[in-house]
Amino acid sequence: MVNRCLITPARTLLTQTINPSLRNGFPAMTEARVLVLDADPLPRLDRLGARARVLHTDEKSLAERLPEADVLLVWDFTSDAVREAWPGPGGRPVWVHTASAGVDRLLFPELLESDAVLTNARGVFDQPIAEYVAGLVLAMAKDFRGSWELQRQHRWQHRETFKVHGSRAVVVGSGPIGRRIGLLLGAMGVRVDLVGRRERTGDPDFGRVHATGALPDLLPEASWVVCAAPLTPETHGMFDARAFALMRPEAHFINIGRGQHVVEDDVVEALQERRIAGAALDVFAQEPLQDSSRLWDAPNLMISPHMSGDTFGWRDDLAEQFLDNFDRWYAGEPLFNVVDKKLGYVPDH
Amino acid sequence: MVNRCLITPARTLLTQTINPSLRNGFPAMTEARVLVLDADPLPRLDRLGARARVLHTDEKSLAERLPEADVLLVWDFTSDAVREAWPGPGGRPVWVHTASAGVDRLLFPELLESDAVLTNARGVFDQPIAEYVAGLVLAMAKDFRGSWELQRQHRWQHRETFKVHGSRAVVVGSGPIGRRIGLLLGAMGVRVDLVGRRERTGDPDFGRVHATGALPDLLPEASWVVCAAPLTPETHGMFDARAFALMRPEAHFINIGRGQHVVEDDVVEALQERRIAGAALDVFAQEPLQDSSRLWDAPNLMISPHMSGDTFGWRDDLAEQFLDNFDRWYAGEPLFNVVDKKLGYVPDH
Repeated sequence: MVNRCLITPARTLLTQTINPSLRNGFPAMTEARVLVLDADPLPRLDRLGARARVLHTDEKSLAERLPEADVLLVWDFTSDAVREAWPGPGGRPVWVHTASAGVDRLLFPELLESDAVLTNARGVFDQPIAEYVAGLVLAMAKDFRGSWELQRQHRWQHRETFKVHGSRAVVVGSGPIGRRIGLLLGAMGVRVDLVGRRERTGDPDFGRVHATGALPDLLPEASWVVCAAPLTPETHGMFDARAFALMRPEAHFINIGRGQHVVEDDVVEALQERRIAGAALDVFAQEPLQDSSRLWDAPNLMISPHMSGDTFGWRDDLAEQFLDNFDRWYAGEPLFNVVDKKLGYVPDH
Repeated sequence: MVNRCLITPARTLLTQTINPSLRNGFPAMTEARVLVLDADPLPRLDRLGARARVLHTDEKSLAERLPEADVLLVWDFTSDAVREAWPGPGGRPVWVHTASAGVDRLLFPELLESDAVLTNARGVFDQPIAEYVAGLVLAMAKDFRGSWELQRQHRWQHRETFKVHGSRAVVVGSGPIGRRIGLLLGAMGVRVDLVGRRERTGDPDFGRVHATGALPDLLPEASWVVCAAPLTPETHGMFDARAFALMRPEAHFINIGRGQHVVEDDVVEALQERRIAGAALDVFAQEPLQDSSRLWDAPNLMISPHMSGDTFGWRDDLAEQFLDNFDRWYAGEPLFNVVDKKLGYVPDH
């Protein structure tokens, strides 16, 4: 899902930064400096060819190397180092790309106020995450975990389980990940209410998209509550005791957004007190999840290590997506997946 | 999915059996004798009202009570007792209904050669089983079991998993259950090859339905192989060492048909030797699965206790379906879900 945004043409930015005299020169002659904040394994960037000099850095050397860079590729999207290392005016990358859908780690005032364009990996994770969520819904409805537990004990114990068709889901987050989740659940016969920042009607897939203000009416109706929202001040901590109290005792909660969407103590309590039937968390306020976390042993809670979007080849897809955007940038064309810094995500149009 | 078949009108059969003089009488005056081969919990048959006298039996008394019955409702569909108890000519039910999709336990020569009409629960299990299979596919693709194992050990270990979209599945069984499975997998972006007894083209949902003879070409292409076939002499033991040898090392096998479709030792061996990546069995040659079975601990095998179709309310659905068919039978209308005794299942038209 490509999102085009008319921004200051990249070539202008590039040439301004590297060599103002090349404004009308041949881009092939210009060598852009692409700095990669490394994570294992490194991205395959051969396709950059002579167009760029690729520099690598770890978190420690980031502050030192950042002023040299035209482009910063945040390959280690789990890092908070960019905020610390962000240089003063004059020595900044003109374009920051993060290999993640969430951009919350990059929404610090100095970057927001700068002219640097911020792009993200919107699109790469939509289908994998939607499959992951659909799988969780079905696994919870059919009690696969119960079957595995019983199998470990060599016990044959027939149970009745839930039909998913005709059940209701609330998906919070109307970006491409939330939409894809909603579409896949809908294809399974689930009635989906999609919730976004603003209410809108006439959505081609969902008809009405609800505003978050409608959640008190929607949550009590849902068997499945899915968080796929961007992390913004408005969504931070939105799944708290109050939200869980609105859910049905049969409801299951799934978070593939960000750990900070959830008050973790509150979800533990809701599960312990059987106020909801189950939950699955793929993201956590602190990752990796600490050994001491109460979450590990909370009843009817499935923990997975931030992997819902990471299907085989995902890193190649992320690198290809950056390279596609680099092609545009280098050619002076508008970038896609440009984050609206005020909103904190890539808007739909 | 209602399947209408022109059979000897039920009222004729009924009045012939109970009281030939009532051939032109008022059905409301006639009391049919409905014998239920009991299982817990009993079906709710209040809707029969004055139209029927309901008799109950266990396996032991079946032979004794069967000659009194106009209609036999095989509510305990796990029982093999009907074969033993089947009466000689003259004292037979004119209609046998089984509360199961599979009719293999009733395909014994004496019933096949009799005039008794055999109907089944075709339709009730389609959606639940399709959801169950879709859930298994996603759970295996996303390695939920691995995540649960790691969670038990409080271990954070990121893994890459499979994207289901674009993968290929072979679904053996082109009846309503197999079709619904195929449609649901298709809705998830899986490319589905449906396999039935005979090849046919122009299928409205699948285009081509393959014959079983095509399996040697199809199995090597599939990530997911699903058995949803009726158990007949042709399908008995069809998933054996030879079939598993044709599958890819990445393939997963799912059986929600009958245990006898699979050579159980062969699937254990295929898993142990990593000739296939995983399997899920919901049905077994002997149920409950014996304590001593090697299957319990076979690697990458999920065992569930014949529950794929049994969503909350399934027993009510089964009773309602029988009652709907009884309405027809009592009114002298053609029954639905009439099994073709030669084929061993309800044909599509």
